[in-house]
Amino acid sequence: MSRKDIFAKCYEFTAAEEARKEGWYPYFRPINENHGNTVIIEGKPFIMAGSNNYLGLSQDPRVIEAAREAVARYGTSCSGSRFMNGTLALHEELEANIADFVGKEAAVCFTTGYQTNLGSISAIMETKAHIVTDKLNHASIMDGIMLGSAFTRCRNIHRYKHNDMNDLRRTLENIDDNEPIIIVTDGVFSMEGDITKLPEIRKLADEFGARVYLDEAHALGVLGEHGKGTMEHYGDNSLADLVMCTFSKSFGSIGGFVAGEARVIDYIKHHSRPLIFSASMSPAQLAAALKSLEIIRQEPERVRRLQQIGDKMRKAFTDLGFNIGTAETPIVPLIIGDDEKTFNFWYKMYQQGLYTNPVISPAVPPKNALIRTSYMATHTDEELDKAIEIAGNVAKKLDIIP
Amino acid sequence: MSRKDIFAKCYEFTAAEEARKEGWYPYFRPINENHGNTVIIEGKPFIMAGSNNYLGLSQDPRVIEAAREAVARYGTSCSGSRFMNGTLALHEELEANIADFVGKEAAVCFTTGYQTNLGSISAIMETKAHIVTDKLNHASIMDGIMLGSAFTRCRNIHRYKHNDMNDLRRTLENIDDNEPIIIVTDGVFSMEGDITKLPEIRKLADEFGARVYLDEAHALGVLGEHGKGTMEHYGDNSLADLVMCTFSKSFGSIGGFVAGEARVIDYIKHHSRPLIFSASMSPAQLAAALKSLEIIRQEPERVRRLQQIGDKMRKAFTDLGFNIGTAETPIVPLIIGDDEKTFNFWYKMYQQGLYTNPVISPAVPPKNALIRTSYMATHTDEELDKAIEIAGNVAKKLDIIP
Repeated sequence: MSRKDIFAKCYEFTAAEEARKEGWYPYFRPINENHGNTVIIEGKPFIMAGSNNYLGLSQDPRVIEAAREAVARYGTSCSGSRFMNGTLALHEELEANIADFVGKEAAVCFTTGYQTNLGSISAIMETKAHIVTDKLNHASIMDGIMLGSAFTRCRNIHRYKHNDMNDLRRTLENIDDNEPIIIVTDGVFSMEGDITKLPEIRKLADEFGARVYLDEAHALGVLGEHGKGTMEHYGDNSLADLVMCTFSKSFGSIGGFVAGEARVIDYIKHHSRPLIFSASMSPAQLAAALKSLEIIRQEPERVRRLQQIGDKMRKAFTDLGFNIGTAETPIVPLIIGDDEKTFNFWYKMYQQGLYTNPVISPAVPPKNALIRTSYMATHTDEELDKAIEIAGNVAKKLDIIP
Repeated sequence: MSRKDIFAKCYEFTAAEEARKEGWYPYFRPINENHGNTVIIEGKPFIMAGSNNYLGLSQDPRVIEAAREAVARYGTSCSGSRFMNGTLALHEELEANIADFVGKEAAVCFTTGYQTNLGSISAIMETKAHIVTDKLNHASIMDGIMLGSAFTRCRNIHRYKHNDMNDLRRTLENIDDNEPIIIVTDGVFSMEGDITKLPEIRKLADEFGARVYLDEAHALGVLGEHGKGTMEHYGDNSLADLVMCTFSKSFGSIGGFVAGEARVIDYIKHHSRPLIFSASMSPAQLAAALKSLEIIRQEPERVRRLQQIGDKMRKAFTDLGFNIGTAETPIVPLIIGDDEKTFNFWYKMYQQGLYTNPVISPAVPPKNALIRTSYMATHTDEELDKAIEIAGNVAKKLDIIP
């Protein structure tokens, strides 16, 4: 049989194995103990500057207790889809509370943030619709568009230059006057740490009769006086028509939601395959998200502390001579450019007990490799100063900074 | 602005609201208390004959305690992707154990079963590959194919008639001799409750140089003397090259895994967007899956009890005159055909305290609406007899059975 084996590409893939042999392979490193701002890996302590646990809530004793209680009361799984036997009253409680928090009529929860984008975007698409998306939006947005495109045969996918309102306008101007449009944007961009120009997007959307879909994964708990995200940051809660967020970052859990008008959410609930054909959020994760939401509402000082930490770290790295690009949040990329240099920089910091994430193409544009650092409200000043010291010293030795 | 609103279809969607007003809307019913084989809804007790909690493990005190301990020890979230900061040693422990259980070299865990199919199938696809899939495979398989198709531009999707080996052969014969092929099948079909003809599929795959991908969502814990699924049922562990399963059914958790040759799994780990761009399985869900796996290995009598229950229910419903189609597992569909009649039958059983799931197109072929009943090892004979009695009495009154 001369047929090519579909596994042939797997046998030819050796890059990961080679990096492992050379000792600097950076991915899938198993953490033995997770204390939030610090972790233990291979028996050694690390400062964790590479997590999305922005408010430290996944380690908060109240969140932990709430999850433990829910497991005792409801068990470890709902064993079915939200659509069928997998809806607990707890799901509806979380949905009502989170819709209220983001100031929308209704919300529906998905089992992961990834599935929230996949399921919301693909459900709202239609053959003749135009999807207008920032080039640096998260992969889950692109996957939602691709899945929706495969099912609806919608071929009108437009990617505009990152946060470039002139390019967005040009894109909108070139779309047929009658065909429906939705503009999709991250609130805070996951690798760059900058904020979408949402008021301008809203203005353009209104001018062109388009809807706005906002991904708040890195914005809820991070932006705004009360952590209500990008719309609070800009002081206008009508800037987006649909808002989604994951529970795996500021909310110390896993899962996600999309919120908006009740009729739109009801439509999504009945047309979203990643919602209908997946088991629902588990009791532990529901309770963790609910308790975290309660804490965020009661303790806005956590959000302010996180914002101050972001300011401190951006200033410190800029002063040291790092290129942090357009960052304006507690996500602070150290832009290196070259892949090998980035891995080398990462590995030397790792050896000194600083945990960060090396990011290369396709997660960022080619030749734009970076170290993604991100911080938590629970980081102490001592930990942050130590992180700055390690990064600075290593970068000097590698001629990354003067 | 004459532009059509992308939300217009949402405002026009009224079917769900109408069913709610009429009182018989069957979906998203919130459960107040989940005791496994029984639940409380709207203050009333129900026999749960509509769950995928096949071994009752989501309510097992040992599984609950394991999840609670893991939350106390590791917190409520890993706050990142497996690829980055989201790998715990616990993920690797689960992967090693589950690979051993299904007799494969290696495994990788995803955050949901849905994402496991989405991420494994799409990663393994390539432009010139042929994906040959049973028409009644689960939606998550089709979504994986659609996502992979959108990214690779692979257009060779072949759907063969359900479990029809002649149609599968015809399909394979019509594929170019050189192009790679993967055959994808459920082990147990989720709505029909029948078993794939895996030995024949393997034989055809070998004849045509194709690989076999097996979805064991409803088979692990259900088929085989030790609950090792379809391959144990047929007594040959080489029948599939890749095996996936969810943890949200027999394993009392949520998440999933794919297992196979180590080099193939390593390739998937580095090329699967739904793995890389999603936060990892949480500590609670990891511990629940691990403990359930341990219990399944220690107590094969649970699997045998489940199989006996399946035999009992299929016989009882057949004797009453129900059409259960090709069912041969503890998933027993009562095939009605007409949508309205199915909803009516469902609602009258629901009113008498029997929880089942009404299933209409597109989850089953049109004009093939059915009540999906499914059972657990923990159901008592009294509960099962009561379920048979309720279904039989209601069906007689509705002229569904003589």
